[in-house]
Amino acid sequence: MQTKLKQGLDIHTNGGTFEVTLDSKSIFKHSPASPCLYVGSGEETIEMYRGNYHIEDYVVERFGLKTYEISRKRDDGFQIDFKRTPADTEVLTVDFLYKDHNLKLTFSGDRETYSRFWIRIAADSDEKIYGCGEQMSHLNLRGKNFPLWTSEPGVGRNKKTYTTFLADVHDKAGGDYYHTNFPQPTYLSSKKYFCHVDTTAYADFDFRKDQYHELQMWEVPEHIMFETGADFKELVSRLTKHLGRQPELPEWTYDGIWLGMQGGTDAVQKKIDEAREKGLKVGAVWAQDWQGKRFTSFGRRLNWNWQWDANEYPGLDQKLKEWKEQGIRFLGYINPYLILDGPLYQEAAAKNYFVLNQKDDIYLVDFGEFDCGIVDLTNPDAFEWYKRVIQIYMIDFGLDGWMADFGEYLPTDAKLFNGEPAMLMHNAWPALWARVNFEAVDEAGKTEEIVYFMRAGYTGSQKYCRLLWAGDQSVNWDLDDGIASVIPAALSAGLTGNGLHHSDIGGYTSLHGNKRSKELLLRWLELAAFTPVMRSHEGNRPTDSHQYDRDEETMDAFVRMTDIHTTLAPYLKEIVKENAEKGIPVQRPLFMEFESDEKTYDIQYQYMLGRDILVAPVYEESVSHWRVYLPDVVWIHLWTGEEFTGGNVEVEAPLGQPPVFYRKGSEYADLYKKIKAEYTIEK
Amino acid sequence: MQTKLKQGLDIHTNGGTFEVTLDSKSIFKHSPASPCLYVGSGEETIEMYRGNYHIEDYVVERFGLKTYEISRKRDDGFQIDFKRTPADTEVLTVDFLYKDHNLKLTFSGDRETYSRFWIRIAADSDEKIYGCGEQMSHLNLRGKNFPLWTSEPGVGRNKKTYTTFLADVHDKAGGDYYHTNFPQPTYLSSKKYFCHVDTTAYADFDFRKDQYHELQMWEVPEHIMFETGADFKELVSRLTKHLGRQPELPEWTYDGIWLGMQGGTDAVQKKIDEAREKGLKVGAVWAQDWQGKRFTSFGRRLNWNWQWDANEYPGLDQKLKEWKEQGIRFLGYINPYLILDGPLYQEAAAKNYFVLNQKDDIYLVDFGEFDCGIVDLTNPDAFEWYKRVIQIYMIDFGLDGWMADFGEYLPTDAKLFNGEPAMLMHNAWPALWARVNFEAVDEAGKTEEIVYFMRAGYTGSQKYCRLLWAGDQSVNWDLDDGIASVIPAALSAGLTGNGLHHSDIGGYTSLHGNKRSKELLLRWLELAAFTPVMRSHEGNRPTDSHQYDRDEETMDAFVRMTDIHTTLAPYLKEIVKENAEKGIPVQRPLFMEFESDEKTYDIQYQYMLGRDILVAPVYEESVSHWRVYLPDVVWIHLWTGEEFTGGNVEVEAPLGQPPVFYRKGSEYADLYKKIKAEYTIEK
Repeated sequence: MQTKLKQGLDIHTNGGTFEVTLDSKSIFKHSPASPCLYVGSGEETIEMYRGNYHIEDYVVERFGLKTYEISRKRDDGFQIDFKRTPADTEVLTVDFLYKDHNLKLTFSGDRETYSRFWIRIAADSDEKIYGCGEQMSHLNLRGKNFPLWTSEPGVGRNKKTYTTFLADVHDKAGGDYYHTNFPQPTYLSSKKYFCHVDTTAYADFDFRKDQYHELQMWEVPEHIMFETGADFKELVSRLTKHLGRQPELPEWTYDGIWLGMQGGTDAVQKKIDEAREKGLKVGAVWAQDWQGKRFTSFGRRLNWNWQWDANEYPGLDQKLKEWKEQGIRFLGYINPYLILDGPLYQEAAAKNYFVLNQKDDIYLVDFGEFDCGIVDLTNPDAFEWYKRVIQIYMIDFGLDGWMADFGEYLPTDAKLFNGEPAMLMHNAWPALWARVNFEAVDEAGKTEEIVYFMRAGYTGSQKYCRLLWAGDQSVNWDLDDGIASVIPAALSAGLTGNGLHHSDIGGYTSLHGNKRSKELLLRWLELAAFTPVMRSHEGNRPTDSHQYDRDEETMDAFVRMTDIHTTLAPYLKEIVKENAEKGIPVQRPLFMEFESDEKTYDIQYQYMLGRDILVAPVYEESVSHWRVYLPDVVWIHLWTGEEFTGGNVEVEAPLGQPPVFYRKGSEYADLYKKIKAEYTIEK
Repeated sequence: MQTKLKQGLDIHTNGGTFEVTLDSKSIFKHSPASPCLYVGSGEETIEMYRGNYHIEDYVVERFGLKTYEISRKRDDGFQIDFKRTPADTEVLTVDFLYKDHNLKLTFSGDRETYSRFWIRIAADSDEKIYGCGEQMSHLNLRGKNFPLWTSEPGVGRNKKTYTTFLADVHDKAGGDYYHTNFPQPTYLSSKKYFCHVDTTAYADFDFRKDQYHELQMWEVPEHIMFETGADFKELVSRLTKHLGRQPELPEWTYDGIWLGMQGGTDAVQKKIDEAREKGLKVGAVWAQDWQGKRFTSFGRRLNWNWQWDANEYPGLDQKLKEWKEQGIRFLGYINPYLILDGPLYQEAAAKNYFVLNQKDDIYLVDFGEFDCGIVDLTNPDAFEWYKRVIQIYMIDFGLDGWMADFGEYLPTDAKLFNGEPAMLMHNAWPALWARVNFEAVDEAGKTEEIVYFMRAGYTGSQKYCRLLWAGDQSVNWDLDDGIASVIPAALSAGLTGNGLHHSDIGGYTSLHGNKRSKELLLRWLELAAFTPVMRSHEGNRPTDSHQYDRDEETMDAFVRMTDIHTTLAPYLKEIVKENAEKGIPVQRPLFMEFESDEKTYDIQYQYMLGRDILVAPVYEESVSHWRVYLPDVVWIHLWTGEEFTGGNVEVEAPLGQPPVFYRKGSEYADLYKKIKAEYTIEK
């Protein structure tokens, strides 16, 4: 029986089976042999070691809701009662509501009975799937399952690499392909719809089966939405209409590189002077130690108390004004934890603003060499207080931005002010943390002046996280955790609605023998020039890592790539604006611009920088040429001006000239020609 | 309501709950919140690479059978109908039958409906669990789950070791703590009962929960039995009464070491001459290349065609008679596969005696460098034919024994003569393979003359496998895969009813940089002297491995430890006889002799050799002393005659004098004193 409802939503029933279509796309195919809903219960085991979670589920019960009854029909939808057998008394009721290409499912009935929930979405065998937050190993998610739980992403992230093995053995920290700071229960299908689940519970989206995707959540969610779009741009635009979009970046962010540095006022001044002398355009300096250091047996660490350290940075209150007048902003650092016995910790403790443990004491989390309290962001007073900490000690002090680090560590046995289980608040934390920052800046009226960048994310980051950075890559060439991984990271985050992305130039993590080489730093530099923001990081072991100012050749490369980046500013501003207005990401997978070209759907290490520019970063060591796939239009090679049409091409790719192409006829062609004219390396 | 049935079996019901006790031991505690039965369905993914299986299960449905009704009561038992809800139409009926301390469960009703089955057995939090076949990492299985699937055991077997990492990366062969050639769905509880499941389906026994053990099988089994015993000896005796026991070993096996060697008649003769010259007592030579070699790109491999190779071993037919007259038996090698295009392959192919693939062609299995057919042992004609192959080409030829290798590789997509799914026959194969050997020897009337040794096992091996060897350890000191691992292997196999065990002296696997050192070989030698059989193996890379004849010191050690072993022969024969008659294993965990001593229940690297001798092998490198736990009786240190009473003691343990103690007052004390007198190393 075909039931034609409002345009776009249909249900077709046939005995025990039904099919629901949205804009003629099959969303559910239910039959007793493959019911679209399974429910049950489970007992999880969750082990956390410094942000690395080991999660196992013991599924106690799981059964398909095989029988159904359409209990209500309206013009704009219908309601279905699901049961295991006709005789069963437990009922899960699902309301299907259609509006403007959107299908919203609302779950009621015996929802609370089940601690585990699985929903099967109809799939095609050749369908591609994208999104699920910031995924660093896979752009097309088909063929794998993706546990969705914010955590440390892992060091190595591939059980076949020696780095991962060592990280696992030493710190339980190796991770795997799905570990990410920023997961999200949202995916886009090549069938041109997105699906977003309104939950913060632990989830696992499984895209391994030919006939269906099976989405698992550790609760029956209140809502799931599906929405179609004419093309991928419309899809992300529609998605971000629901979830929010990032405002534009401050004007000054286009003025030059953001240089990561540490060591106090004099050291920073010295580096600024040197950079200026060399002609390096510095948009900002970023000093993560602005609030001071703490000495531990492991060496120098940051002092997690978010107030200016006048001993470490004497005169900083005046200096940053001076630097700002010279066109250089000063950026700091904060995270949602407070170090035990620091002044802010004491204040928060006195006010009962911390997350508690099961004994009703302050929950202290071990961050490697010191313990911290977690500000309870579910307590509105604590939330407001932390905003004021940012406003008073950072904004009023004169910072123009900061790294808003962490957000992934909420322990699952914590007790929260709002009474919600920590299992449900763990994934919610990154967006709460983003919102603290967002509102602190917004309410200070500084959105056009200040920017902060984050690695943790979840639903809500679209609106509250101004800028993502890719987290802590290893300083090597490993696909899953080195330079290459930031490309799928940017693209999957963009498809999930976070269209502003960048990464630590050179990567961050030096462990287990990995040291950042000059070549890696220079390849990462040239990649960063073709992202919205260039920012360097000294890494966790600065002396082991090659740095921008270590030798003249490196400094020259930084000068030149920063010049190229600032030359692109007019174009970058336009695509950043497009992201703010429409949610279309700055870095885009090729298929977003060339959706009729099937080959583009699995390309995860090339990207479009806006509509015009195709970037194919070099992510292997010791290569001088690079193979690039070009969709079938006319392209101009940035450095030579040579024209290419579609297909696989190989180009020279010496250091400093990454494979970059622009569309012939681009309205920004003059910028690109200027780059060729002024910055091509003479042979 | 208490229902007193025949002495030993009770059921106590109380509303929706019941408890079943056997000899006052709680076996089932059923309640709607924790039903004792769960059923459902699953879809397995099974990947096999050279005997290493990667198995994942997607549990489609699983639900507790929460309601029950006692449908029949008799004097010797009762019958219970289980359902999910009272209204459900699907019923699983379980018959509980008591006889002589044995509770036999028989399943009927909608048995075939379910492809997954879980049964919860009542547990105590301090209960210990043993058995499950030959377990090489854990003796007490509590706290872990044990998938039960015969396979390669893995190289390294511990994800924290570099050897395991390399084996995983290169060959998917690293394995884990539960991988074994010989699993079995049988366990013994410290509550003094055993449980045996009559199934060959994939199983996973989970002993992690405090309140229950959960046994999973991929079918509803026909039967499960529980049986109690007064002590552990009675338990294994009762278990082996059901499953069978190994006959005694041939007399000649006690005459000296079995030396593994290769290379042809002359090479063997040379080694025999040398050994004899040095005074080494050789009980047998074992030449696994008796049927010839095959050259592949990887080097020399065995030719898997089980007929004498007269080119490689000219005159062997006469030579082995000569050697036998001199008191040295000749042992060969066979496995259940036939190399492509060998004469036996051709004969079997012509007779349609091979396992087929899904296309009805002969299923060829890749064994590394060559393909083989699998003789279909479910075909009675093929089974008889393979027995005749053994009888004609091995027994009649004059072999007095052989390694009956392999048995773990039956692919799960094979087609079998008996029409059973290969998923159900995979685990059955080792015992089928053992039975071929058993009957070949038995029907030839040679049980008292011939012995074969196997690594693969399953239910049935108790009766059909004459002697186990521990499989292919790595030539190193790793707990999970080196010298130490053969101790829990022997003990768990013994508790499962296979009481005759030994291992390759020095281990087998040299891969990924592991090379057998002299110290390892000597420590393994001294361990082997205190097992029923001493047998050396050259290893997979003989030139990389230290060998018994590499230097004079090593040869002397072999002479001396073999003398010690043969001195023990009267005692060894008695305990081997005890195993044959009562099923009480030759190597026993300490708690089997000292069950009131709680500390003995977790000791897995010491053992009792029979009732008298306590052995604590040295399994670490570069140590001269060793810490030993002694139960509270009077012990005499074998090498010094010093008396010890119970507790932790530390003794000197130079090479050649492993920590060995015997009970004061032993009736075999003269043997031990002789060893002290004649073989103690002078300082």
